Amino acid sequence: MSYPKKIQIHELGPREGMQIEKNPVTTEEKIRLIDMLSECNFPEIEVVSFVNPKWVPQMADAENIVAGLKAAPNTKYTGVYLNIQGMNRAIATKKLFVEGSLSITASETFSKKNTNRSIDETFEEAARRVEAFRIANIPATEVSVMAAFGCNYEGNVDPDHVIQLIARLMNLAEDNEYTIQHIQLCDTMGWANPQSIKYLVGKIQDRWSTPTINLHLHDTRGMGMANALAALEMGVDDFDSAVAGLGGCPYAGFKDAPGNIATEDLVHMCHELGIETGVNLERLVEVAVEAEKIVGHPLPGKVMRGGRLEAYRQAAQH
Amino acid sequence: MSYPKKIQIHELGPREGMQIEKNPVTTEEKIRLIDMLSECNFPEIEVVSFVNPKWVPQMADAENIVAGLKAAPNTKYTGVYLNIQGMNRAIATKKLFVEGSLSITASETFSKKNTNRSIDETFEEAARRVEAFRIANIPATEVSVMAAFGCNYEGNVDPDHVIQLIARLMNLAEDNEYTIQHIQLCDTMGWANPQSIKYLVGKIQDRWSTPTINLHLHDTRGMGMANALAALEMGVDDFDSAVAGLGGCPYAGFKDAPGNIATEDLVHMCHELGIETGVNLERLVEVAVEAEKIVGHPLPGKVMRGGRLEAYRQAAQH
Repeated sequence: MSYPKKIQIHELGPREGMQIEKNPVTTEEKIRLIDMLSECNFPEIEVVSFVNPKWVPQMADAENIVAGLKAAPNTKYTGVYLNIQGMNRAIATKKLFVEGSLSITASETFSKKNTNRSIDETFEEAARRVEAFRIANIPATEVSVMAAFGCNYEGNVDPDHVIQLIARLMNLAEDNEYTIQHIQLCDTMGWANPQSIKYLVGKIQDRWSTPTINLHLHDTRGMGMANALAALEMGVDDFDSAVAGLGGCPYAGFKDAPGNIATEDLVHMCHELGIETGVNLERLVEVAVEAEKIVGHPLPGKVMRGGRLEAYRQAAQH
Repeated sequence: MSYPKKIQIHELGPREGMQIEKNPVTTEEKIRLIDMLSECNFPEIEVVSFVNPKWVPQMADAENIVAGLKAAPNTKYTGVYLNIQGMNRAIATKKLFVEGSLSITASETFSKKNTNRSIDETFEEAARRVEAFRIANIPATEVSVMAAFGCNYEGNVDPDHVIQLIARLMNLAEDNEYTIQHIQLCDTMGWANPQSIKYLVGKIQDRWSTPTINLHLHDTRGMGMANALAALEMGVDDFDSAVAGLGGCPYAGFKDAPGNIATEDLVHMCHELGIETGVNLERLVEVAVEAEKIVGHPLPGKVMRGGRLEAYRQAAQH
């Protein structure tokens, strides 16, 4: 067991957080949150999703948000898209970094509920997507698996099933002369545990040496940080998280469940373990406090309440 | 790395939770919470603290709580005491299991703030306590260290300092022909991280083979469950926790900080990892929901919102 020396953290709060909020947050406030996060030195901030406003009215202002944000020079700004139309909206902003991502959901039921497509239909969509990448001159670089550890509708997900789904998408990319650089595993509904993380990550590392593994963890059942620790112990160096623990999935089958792991808590744990993140934690904790004000209800982040240990250490020396 | 097959969980919610609540909780409601927890098959429930009502008015009804609770046959009911007077109050209830505990605080400043005694004065108290144990015919069986990983006032705590404090109390017990069976490490202010847990636990395991190690973890900075995982990986099989994450310490120097790790989240993680706890998790999750109603504000437990995975698995099969 040895931790990576440095990890990358992708901040998703503006997208994952805002898409689930019941009380409307103004476009101005969404932009303010992004601009504050831009002061924290993330390699990536996922700012919006390009989805049908009929289903996710909270993201109807996606283009206006992107137009309004002040881009920091060292940060990539990205948006989620679920189909080619969404991808083209992202490209049309001329401000977002658009990655060629091939995504799949490991649970048939959740795939239909969340994306309105079966798994087979998602492979058909992936083939169309590869064509759209070619036309747009965007290389396919990522394979992403949602519900990779389990599903509230279907129960446990077989790791071999996940490996097969990844292999099929990797082959599709290779057949089109693309090289997949990242494999993303999303614990969309909070089914992972430290053992299942180690098992699936280990299987992927054994089979494919090149792509880095990204983990997208939710803290639905309180195991988010323990799962992150298990992944760090496996050498995983790429994580998604959301400031203050914003987020959740509107189609995951339960209400008021906790969202993503809190970015500032993950960054804090990493720094305490001597793992670099490059993130300005002091500023990020302030932003978490502001995020709570913006949504107008308590958020689950802990360091924003308990305080950074480094600040206590410095105060203790005086 | 191998997890223990079975662990013991000591439920502290009624004591740690109630002593910090700002809104008064009636004696009847405190008893109701304990009686519900008694249905969950814990080896121990810590129900009250015998402290000066001038400092902790929330515990002024300690004797009435103990008198009113319905004791389950397989559960030990205990109370916290900070001095001999408190111990004698616990004994006088004739209903509590009173353990001979020798406690110390690893931080001089916090020792004074929390117990009104310096570390040296605490050793003097420990010697008087051993005499009181003899008179009461209670064997000294536990050594407990508060702020064992760090302190909001003094910063990091040196593990060698903790080892020395434990050794001094172990010697005191041995000199009086008592055998210490448990060493308790309390991360009172949330300073531990997975590495410091492994380091201190490893040092203690290397030096003393007989006593079991108990960990009392707070989730002040979101690392509570990751710390529990690190301890499980070291073979630690004895934990304190509080239903729904109740608790916190009134003298820890900050307000509204999260309390203990949530019992139902810890039990849930253990069961997912194949570690037995003996606890009835289904009932415990219901009690967590009730605990939140009793205190009248949101509590940090996650499984009470996200739901047990085992329940989802069973539903998925139908």
